[in-house]
Amino acid sequence: MGPGLSRASPGSPALEVDVDRLLADLDALAQVGSTGDGGNCRLALTDEDAGGRELVVGWMRDLGLDVRVDRIGNVVATRGGTDPELAPVMTGSHIDTVRTGGRYDGTLGVLAGLEVLRALDDAGHRTRRPVAVAFFTDEEGSRFVPDMLGSLVYVGGLALEEALETVGIDGAVLGDELQRIGWAGPAAVPGVVPHAFVELHIEQGPVLEEAGTDIGAVTGVQGISWQELCLTGQANHAGTTPLRLRRDAGYAAARVAASVRELALDLGEPMVGTVGRFHLHPDLVNVVPATATLTVDLRHTDGEVLAEAERRLRHHVAEVAEGEGVDAAWRPLARFEPVRFDPRVVDRVHRAALARGLTAVRMPSGAGHDAQMLARVCPTGMVFVPSHRGISHNPAEHTDPGQLAAGASVLLDVLVDLADGGDLTADVEEA
Amino acid sequence: MGPGLSRASPGSPALEVDVDRLLADLDALAQVGSTGDGGNCRLALTDEDAGGRELVVGWMRDLGLDVRVDRIGNVVATRGGTDPELAPVMTGSHIDTVRTGGRYDGTLGVLAGLEVLRALDDAGHRTRRPVAVAFFTDEEGSRFVPDMLGSLVYVGGLALEEALETVGIDGAVLGDELQRIGWAGPAAVPGVVPHAFVELHIEQGPVLEEAGTDIGAVTGVQGISWQELCLTGQANHAGTTPLRLRRDAGYAAARVAASVRELALDLGEPMVGTVGRFHLHPDLVNVVPATATLTVDLRHTDGEVLAEAERRLRHHVAEVAEGEGVDAAWRPLARFEPVRFDPRVVDRVHRAALARGLTAVRMPSGAGHDAQMLARVCPTGMVFVPSHRGISHNPAEHTDPGQLAAGASVLLDVLVDLADGGDLTADVEEA
Repeated sequence: MGPGLSRASPGSPALEVDVDRLLADLDALAQVGSTGDGGNCRLALTDEDAGGRELVVGWMRDLGLDVRVDRIGNVVATRGGTDPELAPVMTGSHIDTVRTGGRYDGTLGVLAGLEVLRALDDAGHRTRRPVAVAFFTDEEGSRFVPDMLGSLVYVGGLALEEALETVGIDGAVLGDELQRIGWAGPAAVPGVVPHAFVELHIEQGPVLEEAGTDIGAVTGVQGISWQELCLTGQANHAGTTPLRLRRDAGYAAARVAASVRELALDLGEPMVGTVGRFHLHPDLVNVVPATATLTVDLRHTDGEVLAEAERRLRHHVAEVAEGEGVDAAWRPLARFEPVRFDPRVVDRVHRAALARGLTAVRMPSGAGHDAQMLARVCPTGMVFVPSHRGISHNPAEHTDPGQLAAGASVLLDVLVDLADGGDLTADVEEA
Repeated sequence: MGPGLSRASPGSPALEVDVDRLLADLDALAQVGSTGDGGNCRLALTDEDAGGRELVVGWMRDLGLDVRVDRIGNVVATRGGTDPELAPVMTGSHIDTVRTGGRYDGTLGVLAGLEVLRALDDAGHRTRRPVAVAFFTDEEGSRFVPDMLGSLVYVGGLALEEALETVGIDGAVLGDELQRIGWAGPAAVPGVVPHAFVELHIEQGPVLEEAGTDIGAVTGVQGISWQELCLTGQANHAGTTPLRLRRDAGYAAARVAASVRELALDLGEPMVGTVGRFHLHPDLVNVVPATATLTVDLRHTDGEVLAEAERRLRHHVAEVAEGEGVDAAWRPLARFEPVRFDPRVVDRVHRAALARGLTAVRMPSGAGHDAQMLARVCPTGMVFVPSHRGISHNPAEHTDPGQLAAGASVLLDVLVDLADGGDLTADVEEA
């Protein structure tokens, strides 16, 4: 750990995370559901997920925490404060992974939270408010849609009964799987409303690394619009049908797909637009495609701009479809309004990084996180650390130990600040 | 049959095809490998193909023809001429189909050929040269690549041994399947070189119907260039990766796919360009595609223009790939130079149609046909009849009975003209 990361607290033992302990925990958890190539597969509520849960909850019990499992399988482990009447400051994330997951996505936020509690123990520091570390069920949504399901249920955004009836991509029912692996707990949902929530997570994007910045003080989560577009024309022989007589769904789809980039560039950063899926039918080299199905992923931090992007896209598609004589049908896949984190928490993250001598930038999150669900019920923020080459959901996911330590240190400082400080509503709002 | 189709031959009984017999044969053959929706599935050298072969060869034997099966399974049935020393005039096509085939593609040319021989019998007309009706193995190439395999072997363009070793999409070996269904004959390949070859076929395109024309006098076959392009970029999170940091293989592929149309329009008719296949990987809504694979089908009647189209496409792809930072790799799939049919045969087709009071147009074929293989060894031409809405390789493939009769009548006249006429080389070349 570099000198920039040490923080001397006059009159008390040093309050510092131990990066080696954190790395050891990350290593140990990465052995559960290891894919043998550096990656992890702990799809929600599988035996591998259960293995990860047992390991982490074992560590929680070793720390003497009050561990509660709720009815959707979320786990909240609380370290008592000096004033037991106060709501806890909460941190946490998730330990489920996508099928080809890396070792830091989600796990860092949970295990760094536990390391923060160890650091508090080492320093003999008892916070005023309780501090809780949580991991939420099925954040990834890879087996059971939607993603962030556990935290959504935690904050009351999705009824427990409905969540338990969710059918997975493998046909399994969420409630059955939760029972099967033994993680359907007794704690009620919605759960206890925290005083504040702070989540440490890898960026999963290249922005911090590209800029050479240590810490992202996350201002919110981009709004997301996922749509599927199906274009229907006429299958024809690729050799015998003159261009003027074609109704080529593939050509129309290619124009639309290319235009998504142009549209996003035109609206400017942080607008992003992506065509991730693109299928033709009958998908033969010598047949003019009869149908084309593609997905469009649009994201922006401003709901108005996101809606404008959707309007422009629809207008363009209508023009292209009319010109080629194809029919266009839209199917909404997902739509999330942008989430704005609490500026008081964001400021604390930013200040804590600078106080450690780290470089920091305010930035939106392009990916969804449990924190955005907690933001519905309490002041919330996030700490980002860099992702090497922006790679995530991939065995090659990597963040340097020093960067992990920096993130955990900022998390420590912000949690202590929030747990020992006064009422957040007394803060002066900053611009 | 309308009055325009009758042709009185002074001093002999009327030499006319009987469309009802032709329709009955087409109906009967369509029952073999029927897909129940008006379509046919007689993939080459399957049991269904064997069933079709038995039916058609039965009719050939009923007509007292000399039926020869060669070592690649091509069948040639010959009606003797008055001068047995002369090479036969040959017609024919194929009776195999694609998986979702119609009832006219190929079969029309074979069964109309047999109906021509019946008409000769009915009229007691003995031609000077023998007249042969052939069907060639595996014209479609749907099970064993390449297409037009049997006719290619017939003319010596592919060694028998190599053809027999062809492995099908189902893992079957062509030679084994030929033995299994009992259609590996004793006749040598390359086969007898005909005096001339004329093939009647449905257009498989919309041009004749669109123009309201009865007959296409086919001038040749477009050159075909099939290429596969694989673009490799970098998979990234669709939410967290700014546009400026992307290497989006899907975006680059979409631009290329759209440009194929623009390129073809720029080069003008009869240039056609088609992107029929388009695959992304990992094909997820929220992941920037790492790779995109697409096929490009380019066709033109002029080999120089076709090569120019290929050059322009490569240049454009290089530009797009460089701009997006993706790698481009080309894989040639197929390349056929344009085929020019013998003007003397094309003229005979055109004249015969006009003499019947039909409307006729000289036109290239956009699809490949057995005739283009025969054109390597003898004067060759083709007769096209309209395809309703240009639909082919589809159960909805349709040509009206009157149009079928018109085509068969023109075939009759041209075959008799060629079989009774003098040496083609004595013809004055027409412009």
